[in-house]
Amino acid sequence: MNTVGHLINGQIVNDAARLQDVYNPSTGEVSKQVALASKSTVEQAISAAEAAFPAWRNTPPLKRARVMFRFKELLEQNADRIAQMIGEEHGKISHDALGELQRGIENVEYACGAPELLKGEHSKNVGPNIDSWSEFQPLGVVAGITPFNFPAMVPLWMFPMAIVCGNCFILKPSERDPSSTLFIAQLLQEAGLPDGVMNVVNGDKEAVDTLLSDERIQAVSFVGSTPIAEYIYKTASANGKRCQALGGAKNHAIVMPDADMDNAVNQLLGAAFGSSGERCMALSVAVAVGDAAADALIEKMQAAMQTLKVGAYSEKSNDFGPVITKAHQQKVVGYINSAEEQGAKIVVDGRNPQVVGHENGFFVGGTLIDNVLPEMLSYQEEIFGPVLQVVRVNSMQEAMNLIDAHEYGNGTCIFTRDGEAARYFSDNIKVGMVGINVPLPVPVAYHSFGGWKRSLFGDLHAYGPDAVRFYTRRKTITQRWPSASIRESVEFSMPTMK
Amino acid sequence: MNTVGHLINGQIVNDAARLQDVYNPSTGEVSKQVALASKSTVEQAISAAEAAFPAWRNTPPLKRARVMFRFKELLEQNADRIAQMIGEEHGKISHDALGELQRGIENVEYACGAPELLKGEHSKNVGPNIDSWSEFQPLGVVAGITPFNFPAMVPLWMFPMAIVCGNCFILKPSERDPSSTLFIAQLLQEAGLPDGVMNVVNGDKEAVDTLLSDERIQAVSFVGSTPIAEYIYKTASANGKRCQALGGAKNHAIVMPDADMDNAVNQLLGAAFGSSGERCMALSVAVAVGDAAADALIEKMQAAMQTLKVGAYSEKSNDFGPVITKAHQQKVVGYINSAEEQGAKIVVDGRNPQVVGHENGFFVGGTLIDNVLPEMLSYQEEIFGPVLQVVRVNSMQEAMNLIDAHEYGNGTCIFTRDGEAARYFSDNIKVGMVGINVPLPVPVAYHSFGGWKRSLFGDLHAYGPDAVRFYTRRKTITQRWPSASIRESVEFSMPTMK
Amino acid sequence: MNTVGHLINGQIVNDAARLQDVYNPSTGEVSKQVALASKSTVEQAISAAEAAFPAWRNTPPLKRARVMFRFKELLEQNADRIAQMIGEEHGKISHDALGELQRGIENVEYACGAPELLKGEHSKNVGPNIDSWSEFQPLGVVAGITPFNFPAMVPLWMFPMAIVCGNCFILKPSERDPSSTLFIAQLLQEAGLPDGVMNVVNGDKEAVDTLLSDERIQAVSFVGSTPIAEYIYKTASANGKRCQALGGAKNHAIVMPDADMDNAVNQLLGAAFGSSGERCMALSVAVAVGDAAADALIEKMQAAMQTLKVGAYSEKSNDFGPVITKAHQQKVVGYINSAEEQGAKIVVDGRNPQVVGHENGFFVGGTLIDNVLPEMLSYQEEIFGPVLQVVRVNSMQEAMNLIDAHEYGNGTCIFTRDGEAARYFSDNIKVGMVGINVPLPVPVAYHSFGGWKRSLFGDLHAYGPDAVRFYTRRKTITQRWPSASIRESVEFSMPTMK
Amino acid sequence: MNTVGHLINGQIVNDAARLQDVYNPSTGEVSKQVALASKSTVEQAISAAEAAFPAWRNTPPLKRARVMFRFKELLEQNADRIAQMIGEEHGKISHDALGELQRGIENVEYACGAPELLKGEHSKNVGPNIDSWSEFQPLGVVAGITPFNFPAMVPLWMFPMAIVCGNCFILKPSERDPSSTLFIAQLLQEAGLPDGVMNVVNGDKEAVDTLLSDERIQAVSFVGSTPIAEYIYKTASANGKRCQALGGAKNHAIVMPDADMDNAVNQLLGAAFGSSGERCMALSVAVAVGDAAADALIEKMQAAMQTLKVGAYSEKSNDFGPVITKAHQQKVVGYINSAEEQGAKIVVDGRNPQVVGHENGFFVGGTLIDNVLPEMLSYQEEIFGPVLQVVRVNSMQEAMNLIDAHEYGNGTCIFTRDGEAARYFSDNIKVGMVGINVPLPVPVAYHSFGGWKRSLFGDLHAYGPDAVRFYTRRKTITQRWPSASIRESVEFSMPTMK
Repeated sequence: MNTVGHLINGQIVNDAARLQDVYNPSTGEVSKQVALASKSTVEQAISAAEAAFPAWRNTPPLKRARVMFRFKELLEQNADRIAQMIGEEHGKISHDALGELQRGIENVEYACGAPELLKGEHSKNVGPNIDSWSEFQPLGVVAGITPFNFPAMVPLWMFPMAIVCGNCFILKPSERDPSSTLFIAQLLQEAGLPDGVMNVVNGDKEAVDTLLSDERIQAVSFVGSTPIAEYIYKTASANGKRCQALGGAKNHAIVMPDADMDNAVNQLLGAAFGSSGERCMALSVAVAVGDAAADALIEKMQAAMQTLKVGAYSEKSNDFGPVITKAHQQKVVGYINSAEEQGAKIVVDGRNPQVVGHENGFFVGGTLIDNVLPEMLSYQEEIFGPVLQVVRVNSMQEAMNLIDAHEYGNGTCIFTRDGEAARYFSDNIKVGMVGINVPLPVPVAYHSFGGWKRSLFGDLHAYGPDAVRFYTRRKTITQRWPSASIRESVEFSMPTMK
Repeated sequence: MNTVGHLINGQIVNDAARLQDVYNPSTGEVSKQVALASKSTVEQAISAAEAAFPAWRNTPPLKRARVMFRFKELLEQNADRIAQMIGEEHGKISHDALGELQRGIENVEYACGAPELLKGEHSKNVGPNIDSWSEFQPLGVVAGITPFNFPAMVPLWMFPMAIVCGNCFILKPSERDPSSTLFIAQLLQEAGLPDGVMNVVNGDKEAVDTLLSDERIQAVSFVGSTPIAEYIYKTASANGKRCQALGGAKNHAIVMPDADMDNAVNQLLGAAFGSSGERCMALSVAVAVGDAAADALIEKMQAAMQTLKVGAYSEKSNDFGPVITKAHQQKVVGYINSAEEQGAKIVVDGRNPQVVGHENGFFVGGTLIDNVLPEMLSYQEEIFGPVLQVVRVNSMQEAMNLIDAHEYGNGTCIFTRDGEAARYFSDNIKVGMVGINVPLPVPVAYHSFGGWKRSLFGDLHAYGPDAVRFYTRRKTITQRWPSASIRESVEFSMPTMK
Repeated sequence: MNTVGHLINGQIVNDAARLQDVYNPSTGEVSKQVALASKSTVEQAISAAEAAFPAWRNTPPLKRARVMFRFKELLEQNADRIAQMIGEEHGKISHDALGELQRGIENVEYACGAPELLKGEHSKNVGPNIDSWSEFQPLGVVAGITPFNFPAMVPLWMFPMAIVCGNCFILKPSERDPSSTLFIAQLLQEAGLPDGVMNVVNGDKEAVDTLLSDERIQAVSFVGSTPIAEYIYKTASANGKRCQALGGAKNHAIVMPDADMDNAVNQLLGAAFGSSGERCMALSVAVAVGDAAADALIEKMQAAMQTLKVGAYSEKSNDFGPVITKAHQQKVVGYINSAEEQGAKIVVDGRNPQVVGHENGFFVGGTLIDNVLPEMLSYQEEIFGPVLQVVRVNSMQEAMNLIDAHEYGNGTCIFTRDGEAARYFSDNIKVGMVGINVPLPVPVAYHSFGGWKRSLFGDLHAYGPDAVRFYTRRKTITQRWPSASIRESVEFSMPTMK
Repeated sequence: MNTVGHLINGQIVNDAARLQDVYNPSTGEVSKQVALASKSTVEQAISAAEAAFPAWRNTPPLKRARVMFRFKELLEQNADRIAQMIGEEHGKISHDALGELQRGIENVEYACGAPELLKGEHSKNVGPNIDSWSEFQPLGVVAGITPFNFPAMVPLWMFPMAIVCGNCFILKPSERDPSSTLFIAQLLQEAGLPDGVMNVVNGDKEAVDTLLSDERIQAVSFVGSTPIAEYIYKTASANGKRCQALGGAKNHAIVMPDADMDNAVNQLLGAAFGSSGERCMALSVAVAVGDAAADALIEKMQAAMQTLKVGAYSEKSNDFGPVITKAHQQKVVGYINSAEEQGAKIVVDGRNPQVVGHENGFFVGGTLIDNVLPEMLSYQEEIFGPVLQVVRVNSMQEAMNLIDAHEYGNGTCIFTRDGEAARYFSDNIKVGMVGINVPLPVPVAYHSFGGWKRSLFGDLHAYGPDAVRFYTRRKTITQRWPSASIRESVEFSMPTMK
């Protein structure tokens, strides 16, 4: 059986002392194993990164960017192979995996602009003949810890910007679907990156804790669930590191009475069920303002869901695939059960999907629940499955109060045609990423990604302009030259022309 | 005896349960008392700030900036009075107090540019007919905790920018010299700030811990010593707040053989002894490259120090005044003693200064120490007194290694005429603020202030552009309007002109 | 009778060879005379500016900005006096004159941010150990030529930014209402500006042509009518100067069927008749989409216009005052006549207003004309009087086609509640300044002012960020230091510590 | 014989009415012919561009940028072929042609960052609930007119940025070496650019004048000689177009007594003779401060020039090739003759180079002239040949006065080790591009290229950040939504939760 190892100092390393099974969630079978790095393996990676730093930091940003230009080409050339790897271990259908990869490539494209992004601020004459300027210097060795649900995209949110800013990187990807991540790192190596600048260590808590405690690590970027994000942030901060830790979400869409309902339903379909709802930007709650809007939404959504196809990653006509593990499948079903028990109405029930030929896959079908109330468990927690819950309210303000009262503040959306409603909503809602008729308002790569409240711990958001600030340190130089120097002293004879 | 109270919701409040003495360090006598806020007093301030937030956040940035324009005028009109207050409680001479205030006013001037500074990023067509933009919204209620050594300037580093960005503020100034800070806050009130936007609570650890634990506080800015900075940072971070905590320093100047020595000595004089060395940017170590440079430096510095005058704040011809407390005076003398005991040479000895008429003042005279070695206690720790130590090295690289090996990385400087030496130094030294022939490279108000290593905990520096990012939260909106709306539907008859 | 002179090198200068009458348009009487500068007087001003340039250019931006801080204070303290001067010579009511001044002061406020605005771009390592940065240096002596309709505001669009960027300035204001402009320049002098940095020459074509031909003038900013703007632009460009020349306008508002009609009428009232329509941003054409919208608009507007009060500047309850000259009064009436003759319907007729006690003032009453067609003279030309014309169309696209077909493209507006209509309009309309439910979309001082098509000649807009670029010249420095210099050479003995 | 045609609307077009010979300057023989476009051919290209504009303008910037990503790949893959085409028609050696192409590609890399570069400025609450933002919209159809000396690089300075900003482009390259330019445009087409967005018309004054007069052309970028640049600028400006016209140069290097002379000579060698001196950034005058510096410079330069090899483009070991035409060869020799006649000393004489096997090529050898005086013809005019002239002065100020007195202000350089001399020079010299120990201070692609004085007509420099501003037009939108709209009206019953 294949074993997925680490990438350290440009080489694939296999420290096979501890191994963990990697599943194919479409079949429920173990497909390979992944090595779990020991403390010393992680330290070896850190040492390699530390050794590579001085030369990489001094490499002109334009040259660093050119590695990213080549990396983009390689990612595009290998897109199908990467999508296949993702499908096999994560279960998402190839069109979805390709979409994920594309979003990741956009971060590489942004990183290609490093020479512009790294410009410092220059001030002439802050005092008489005194100049001052700020530079943004790399931090040194930085780390990323990434989740299973986007094995290609989330790592690509982090390391291209970190590296193009002049840092060296240690990535600890999810141990559930490690293959595509490792392969992508190898492509970066192939693109011309010097050995040691990019390193991948697969592993579990031992690897994570080593990264959090080793004093050579200057900064940690994390994406995962809120409890872990909070642990990472507190620990890294206490150890004097920069940290940005992105956690969970419960993203609501407000459906206003004036919304283009067909458009809203069409948008919600993809936003709620795409990737089995295993996205931190999944739209999992629709808040309908008024019963008329709610009834229309339920009716049209129910009809639209008849065409939804759940199945194995390898069949392109499927809309979404299995969830990541057996345990997670049971957890999602448990949330649906609890909603039912607490009085909500299961309009479309995905608890027993039939996927012929994949009876042992970890599937949950698309589920629609009406009359959900804020006090229900399924409302309060992140389900991370293909479940759309509908809450009915009587006013837009009531809908906004609901959203603001939830512990998470990642993404949200409003469906309306009205300029004033949209502006009031986006101005006042306590959520970091807001869509107006856009159900999945993931910022493009040249803006930055980040939620509010307990969806993000840290000052700076992920990727985009904030990533430049996160992965660099400001240095301000103030300069005055003493006079009576070479300029005034060289006057060899009577000047003939002045 | 006068009692210094708090400013809460626009009113001076006196919760006199606990009081602490405030000294005049030039005479050694108690001059007044300061109230120490209880937990409930601090919570009252936080509640006032929270109540003021919704209206202040919605006040156009231009209107917020205009309060700062008026605040600047009032600070300038009251400069002498403020300098007098500082001198009485801190001991610094009036020219120095006015200089401190001026540096503070420059931050108010910068805050006047809020409408420009708060501009967000706008992207047309991130997709077909989809626009996206990022706004920088205020955080809510934020806090500042400031040290005794700059009772006017350091608070002015914080609250003007925080407030002009739309936040409400709780300031906990030093309890050793609280009067000027409170008066400045009252001037801001007079400038037209609505009640509750700016609040001052005097106090001790109880006040600090309330600010660090109350969940309504969104962010904490701190300036003080490194152990406290670290405590503040860890605690605030663990409680889910943003934090920037600035700590101690040990700022070195490299004196190169080609330096303009007269200029260097002249610059070092002010940088080492100004404000009795009680500045986190004080230049406390001179690293001379080669014995020739060292000998020249010692000789010229010794001569120049003959003219230094230490004395009471009220006499303008004095160069610097007392240190802040009796205990601190003894601590500084202890460092000089230890250097002598460990083999350094006391070239100019300030341990027993004669200040006629102020025999009980907390004075230490300007002190110059040669042959200091890295292993000495006086080298390793921050003295925070009027003591300049000289270390002799044989090469510039050796000097830089020394600096990089020290735990602090606040400021540093090189004296040279050589472009290459200056560039190599500023590029490579692991220090956040670098001077080239500028011994006190405090960034101007439109750049940002921050050290590296254990001189600053946090991602973003103080004041300047970084303050905008620290005191705001990014929100990204993505917007698409559904078609088939009013635009296409209104076509009342055959158009007559197209 | 009083004579208005020039301000040259800090002194009021009177070259009384040629004089021109200045009228009080509210009474129709001559109130004073203005000196018309000869070529040599203008050259004297240029020489003064040229002499002042080297020192001013080297004055730190922060110090230059502080002159603007004081200037703002003085303008605010003298606001009533300035409004009085404007009223007397221009005729606008004091609330309007104070509004104009306030808009001007906002440009001074923006200029106070010069240290931030003048930051250059700094790039480390454009090649190995090669740095490069761009500075924005002042041009030298620059000129402004300004119109009668905003004697305070339009000059304040220009010289504060030009001067704070380090340039010296020659202003040629309108000879019809020169007093407030000259007084404002004197306040700037009082604020601490060195002599010669700001100069005012009153005059006519002789002064203008001298400014356009003198090779010491580096740049010319102009605001006025399109034919003159075009002449200024061609001549200045042919003489190798930078030029931005702002001309005429015909600003349309589209009134959509879903508009909040009461709000629209209320907004249009001020935008069409304020300052007698003598504004380049006056809203002079309403394009109603559909007859229902048109009928409602006409009905409500007619009713609202009953309360409009035209009269002398000195009576604060008046809504607007006279037009600038007898000749202009006749021209405006002529346009109304022509509309009537060409078949439009005069709904409200302002051709014979009764202003008791001011029978000789140059008054025109508020006029509303319905059924205006694009081929009418009154539609094609800029009236610059208190006349609102209504064009009826059948679709939004037809309305937009009308606007795009007009030679001017200064400002425009749409009244709607619909997000899609607003976005389509602002995206596609060929006009530089667009309002969405904002009838007078003059950009705030921290954005820039500029029309499209024949409303502006030049690359860069007026005031705001564009003004920084217009009044500075980019210089890019690329720097590499040779090695084997002082740094490597100083190694006096075996290093003891590395 | 081959004929070089035009690229119009994605097709190669040949209007063979008028043809002109294209030479191989290494052999002196005609190698092909180029079609000279008639007015109607140019108009056909403009029409194609105009038709392509609406769709291209609406293409998301990221998609436009992706065409540039592919274009970069194609340019790199075809680099040798392009260098061959350049060598054949221009004569430059392949290493030089590849260097030119690389500099051009860097502009394509910069254009890949369009999504970041096109961000507008967004302001919340410019008034209560009023927002305002500025967009940078493309102009429409724009044109470029480029010189023979950089047939690949200078066009690449222009069209990638123009096109990525959303414009359509008409390029009129030099008719002396048109092949590589046309081929590059075809590669852009191959990269996925829609037909009509990029068009190339070969031609002479008829084509140029058509571009200058056709009202559909919104902007013109030009690089060439100063008399033509001035003509282009005046004509385009008079016709209401934006224009930036870059002209001639006479770039001086100051050699200070403390310079690293070996380094200076080494740098000057390439900067003076590379590409036969046919570069607007060629370093053609060395100003030595003091006779000692001058003597050392002459001696070392004379020695270094012994190794210089002039010859045909096809031999890679050559340092530089022929000049562009027979007529230009004679003109260069004429300047050398005139210097000799006017009293200068020809130290190294390149007037009769021996290039075996290429006796009819248009060669001039590397020439070094000492004792040049400012009044000599060879000093006053741009030679554009492989000739380095040395002027001797007695002080740095005298050297700077010389440079500032010259009509051109393109590039300049100082060789020194002294920080103060470098800063004084770069601050005060009236030249747009300044090198410190960098003889050819061409700004990198992420800064902008532009001279001062008569080296550039226009406000904005070429490529880099200025290109974004040159190729876009600012539009400012101000938006307020009326209240009492959908948000407040939808309240269907008593709210149950607030």
